[in-house]
Amino acid sequence: MAPPPTTTVPPFVGLIVRVLTFICLLISLILIATNTDTIPTNIGDVKIKFSDFYAYRYLIATVVIGMAYTLLQAAFSIFLVTTGNRLGGEGFCLFDFYGDKFISYFLATGAAASFGMTQDLKQLQNGDDTLNKFLGIADAAASLCLLGFILAVVSSVFSSYALPKRA
Amino acid sequence: MAPPPTTTVPPFVGLIVRVLTFICLLISLILIATNTDTIPTNIGDVKIKFSDFYAYRYLIATVVIGMAYTLLQAAFSIFLVTTGNRLGGEGFCLFDFYGDKFISYFLATGAAASFGMTQDLKQLQNGDDTLNKFLGIADAAASLCLLGFILAVVSSVFSSYALPKRA
Repeated sequence: MAPPPTTTVPPFVGLIVRVLTFICLLISLILIATNTDTIPTNIGDVKIKFSDFYAYRYLIATVVIGMAYTLLQAAFSIFLVTTGNRLGGEGFCLFDFYGDKFISYFLATGAAASFGMTQDLKQLQNGDDTLNKFLGIADAAASLCLLGFILAVVSSVFSSYALPKRA
Repeated sequence: MAPPPTTTVPPFVGLIVRVLTFICLLISLILIATNTDTIPTNIGDVKIKFSDFYAYRYLIATVVIGMAYTLLQAAFSIFLVTTGNRLGGEGFCLFDFYGDKFISYFLATGAAASFGMTQDLKQLQNGDDTLNKFLGIADAAASLCLLGFILAVVSSVFSSYALPKRA
């Protein structure tokens, strides 16, 4: 029995999801990479940036790898929408399935690590709000990564439903 | 065309994965819930525990929800292994698919939030190692949650492959 037609998603819907994912990750990358702040201390001003925190470095890594993968998949989707053929044939369904799964988990951990760190850093400040602007922008970047993750989950559900086609 | 038999996994393999997931999460829960430490300060000893940190409270939440879901699925699996029938019929494949997906993402974020916070807290200590024992045990709990997450991903791959059967 062939899989029912309802299990597949129109190619342009998949493409729109990929493009939205890419846009979210791009804004997230710009926000976190340009996030700097200067803290006045007794021994002079201290400049802080994303690379001073492990969690934000990890966030950047997940966002960049997520963008590269999403761009690749968007290119495949454009090819599929314009020509109606899947590049590399149906065997690519497995690549989509495992790739989408891996990337969505990766983005989830990037966003979670940043949120986890930011929340506790806010608490550790103990009423002092010197870092609030810096942490606020970091939270915005993590939120956009979270949005990118949710869109990646949608792609992952699509590619799971497309799995039967590989038979 | 029926999906090839290779797409389904023997029921007892699924059960073993569920049991291993549950064991990992249980040890993780015990480690993080019993993790306390006393820090000597100028104004007397300060007792710290997991609930002082947002990230560890979130870890506990994900582990407990993960355990409840895994226990439910293990019960279904035992029923399947002993009677050969899937409780609730094939329609449950969709519940498995979305449930496994959600729980695995949930566990991933729990482990990532704890790791992110712990690494930066270690760095912020600035050579002082008062918190090292506490953070070490928290890292062990997060690692076991990560192991539980990887096993949940395996269950999720199984339930994705089982999707065609619902047609």
